[in-house]
Amino acid sequence: MTIPPDDDVLPPGLTAADFTAALRAFAGALGDSAVLRSAAAVGEFRDPYAFASWDEHWPSAVVQPAGVEEVQEVVRIARRHRVPLWTNSMGKNNAYGGGAPRVRGSVVVSLRRMNRILEVNEELAYAVVEPGVSFFDLCADLRRRGTALWASIPDLGWGSVVGNALDHGFGYLPEGDHAASQCGMEVVLADGSLLRTGMGAMNGNRAWHAHRRGFGPAVDALFMQSNYGIVTKMGKWLTPQPEVYAPVAVRASREADLEALVDGLRPLLLDGTVRNLPLLGMMMGAAAMTKPREAWQPGGGPLTEAFYQRVMDELGTGYWNLRTALYGAEAVVDAQLARIRSVFAAVPGVEVIARKIAGADVSEETVTLHPDRVQAGIPGLRLLDILGWWGGTGGHLDFSPVAPLHGADVRALTQLIRPEIERAGLDFWPGAVLTPRSFVYVCPILFDAADESQARAAYDVYRRLVQLTAAAGYGLYRGHISFMDDIADAYDFGDQAMRRLQETIKDALDPDGILSPGKQGIWPGSMRKDRS
Amino acid sequence: MTIPPDDDVLPPGLTAADFTAALRAFAGALGDSAVLRSAAAVGEFRDPYAFASWDEHWPSAVVQPAGVEEVQEVVRIARRHRVPLWTNSMGKNNAYGGGAPRVRGSVVVSLRRMNRILEVNEELAYAVVEPGVSFFDLCADLRRRGTALWASIPDLGWGSVVGNALDHGFGYLPEGDHAASQCGMEVVLADGSLLRTGMGAMNGNRAWHAHRRGFGPAVDALFMQSNYGIVTKMGKWLTPQPEVYAPVAVRASREADLEALVDGLRPLLLDGTVRNLPLLGMMMGAAAMTKPREAWQPGGGPLTEAFYQRVMDELGTGYWNLRTALYGAEAVVDAQLARIRSVFAAVPGVEVIARKIAGADVSEETVTLHPDRVQAGIPGLRLLDILGWWGGTGGHLDFSPVAPLHGADVRALTQLIRPEIERAGLDFWPGAVLTPRSFVYVCPILFDAADESQARAAYDVYRRLVQLTAAAGYGLYRGHISFMDDIADAYDFGDQAMRRLQETIKDALDPDGILSPGKQGIWPGSMRKDRS
Repeated sequence: MTIPPDDDVLPPGLTAADFTAALRAFAGALGDSAVLRSAAAVGEFRDPYAFASWDEHWPSAVVQPAGVEEVQEVVRIARRHRVPLWTNSMGKNNAYGGGAPRVRGSVVVSLRRMNRILEVNEELAYAVVEPGVSFFDLCADLRRRGTALWASIPDLGWGSVVGNALDHGFGYLPEGDHAASQCGMEVVLADGSLLRTGMGAMNGNRAWHAHRRGFGPAVDALFMQSNYGIVTKMGKWLTPQPEVYAPVAVRASREADLEALVDGLRPLLLDGTVRNLPLLGMMMGAAAMTKPREAWQPGGGPLTEAFYQRVMDELGTGYWNLRTALYGAEAVVDAQLARIRSVFAAVPGVEVIARKIAGADVSEETVTLHPDRVQAGIPGLRLLDILGWWGGTGGHLDFSPVAPLHGADVRALTQLIRPEIERAGLDFWPGAVLTPRSFVYVCPILFDAADESQARAAYDVYRRLVQLTAAAGYGLYRGHISFMDDIADAYDFGDQAMRRLQETIKDALDPDGILSPGKQGIWPGSMRKDRS
Repeated sequence: MTIPPDDDVLPPGLTAADFTAALRAFAGALGDSAVLRSAAAVGEFRDPYAFASWDEHWPSAVVQPAGVEEVQEVVRIARRHRVPLWTNSMGKNNAYGGGAPRVRGSVVVSLRRMNRILEVNEELAYAVVEPGVSFFDLCADLRRRGTALWASIPDLGWGSVVGNALDHGFGYLPEGDHAASQCGMEVVLADGSLLRTGMGAMNGNRAWHAHRRGFGPAVDALFMQSNYGIVTKMGKWLTPQPEVYAPVAVRASREADLEALVDGLRPLLLDGTVRNLPLLGMMMGAAAMTKPREAWQPGGGPLTEAFYQRVMDELGTGYWNLRTALYGAEAVVDAQLARIRSVFAAVPGVEVIARKIAGADVSEETVTLHPDRVQAGIPGLRLLDILGWWGGTGGHLDFSPVAPLHGADVRALTQLIRPEIERAGLDFWPGAVLTPRSFVYVCPILFDAADESQARAAYDVYRRLVQLTAAAGYGLYRGHISFMDDIADAYDFGDQAMRRLQETIKDALDPDGILSPGKQGIWPGSMRKDRS
């Protein structure tokens, strides 16, 4: 790996002497050990899947505040020294750029030292956590305390509970829309002052993490996918351990069944039969977790029909695989499961496989499959295995456009994405998170990050897909740091009215442009190219 | 009723000549008939329950744009002429000030002419409506189109679907948190430009009303309970007509059962057994809908225990009455109902009464009781009958603090509110909307609006209660225009950090302070008293 020498990377516009002064100020406020400049330490915050010599997103240093007051100090110092910051909760966010900043030379603010679980309220089913708390941490703590609470988690358990919610992330329990199941934040603003949102805007308010809104406009969403503040704590709603947990798998053997699965599930989501966020995917994950591409189809080239058939035959998987789960009193779950079965009984060749287990008996010992674990709030890293697909240094970009939850739209979007990815010599890996009215396609574009031309092909096709899908009326819900301007450009109603509004708010809240410049395509006035 | 002469009320700082010029400009853009100045027309936008001579909230005129472009014109003209506007969807909002502006002499922008239902999407269960669409209009349209969709509605059907959501209003179906079941707005900003939120920020996006967020920070909540823009259309999620609808009444005969009802219902809400927003109330509504106070307890004075007992005996009501409903496949509803019964079977003297009816059979003919209708999306005005309670000109203020959904908190809040209201010579009328984690107390303080001293007593006790409840950690979710500054003052964390943020955003988005100054305690820079 090419690592720029320590003094090679500086914040834009700063001399080495300016920067040294800024680092001294950070160290003075936080202690020497909280300021990191070594190539190894800084290198943790590059995009883990970028080709080694691509260094446009290299940070210059890392600061690690240990508490709210230290975050306030960091912001004040950055403002004084004109140092752009880039905030990370844990530094994961893989496939979207990892912990790397948009602006080369930014100072990473890593909140991983702020890892306290401040409150667990069992009766009201919520926890209050700092940004350095991972899903692993939270789930272990809920077990250690002996609570009957489950946390909604994404497929990989190492990320930050707060960071995931802030990036509009999804999990797979009933509280799986993580941005929506956030309730009540504390935020450090760019002037170093401290804000509490919702009912927390009142000193000593007892409903801070129980009621969604306070008085006047709710500002919580402003601090998600944005660069308007640094969130230092967050209330997160949890799911009560159910009497019965029933993971459900729906398998369809034909590619043509995509619409039937989507349209079949929609009424079940809309009427509350299914309360979690189901995941619909092709068999690619199962294939990759078994063996690499070369072992399935030696010699490269586009994947053939024979490959897909062989995976289905060998692994007993469907072409499309839908996973969901039911949670509740046994009689309720039984009735809901019967309803799911009756809907899919109408689709030829579709199979519904379910299992029931008492919620109190759910553990790593009793629940062993990844899909069954992740829907019960048992975190893991199993999904990392897919990165071996191409051999070499596994990397991926996640291309994530949203469609209405309608078979015809999902088909149209699939027909845009698949051929474009395959023309680039890469494989189509659709996965999708389903909400009651939307289909969030999360298509990992896998590549060997040690192979520059394959990595370049993945980046190039991502950029093309942003434009292609936008032209057809589908926008991304999240994006890789390298494409944030492209994605934001595609939100073009009213001559970019949304970006103008976001920039107006940016300038009002962070006039010096200190906080995460460029995140989500929002640049401070000083770094904005004029768009006329 | 004292009606100020036409030329008596002017926007602050404007001469009669200035104002005449502004009115000419409005009439030039919208047509003469869209600009109203008669005392009768303007009087529709005073607080309907204010004592006749209280005129601090009198508007100066009413303008009625018929479409988005006309709203843009109104904003541009107001800015040019420095006329403060006050936006109304339908002008209801009774008990919170009706359609009256905070600043005397504001020009009311009534959106009642913009009353089109722009789209009903049956598959994805949403409608797109303009602000002048009432709940009556929407529900009638859903029936007329023959859709199998129900809309969540509040107790009174005459209000605006958009206006209610914007004021964080609640209804009683599964999509009953109306601010949360909003999806995708169009907004006119203070500079006259047009914004679309969420996925609608992309031209031609197909998921505008199906997916909650776009790319970057979601700004929808900024336009609720605020004065940052004028919402001209909104997507509203609907509930699919269920196979079976089962309204459920839970009656408890003792005042002391309050905690048992709250704590009994909480797990049912948290685990999804109950998916709508239940309403918990005392028997006061039933009493008032039968006969006025004087007929129940002649001669005035505080209500006695004998009164409460008599109401229960005569009307067969409980002391506390909880209403909820189940929606879904019959077997699911049966299992959920059994679970509700088993929870409350544990509480002595509590009775659960339920009825089942096929969703397709629900109509005004088959469902006759108000609680059963309102939970099935059949709107009415029945609740207005309670206004006859004191005789004279019935009026009320709604005092609406929020507690966590916890019996002990609800008891503590009740013990703060009840004696204070009774000391003021008024009656305690608790009602509460329950969300899975919060208890939204909506206490109508009824009075005879023609009796100045009783009206004054109601206003005075409201103001005292704002402070008393805030000191104990409970904040209001919504408030009457006369107390918005008091309520906002109570949100005091970080030396009013929330209000400072809201004001910073106000100044950035509306530098001339044209839009609804003072709403929710947010004043533009030009009207702000310094808070040092």
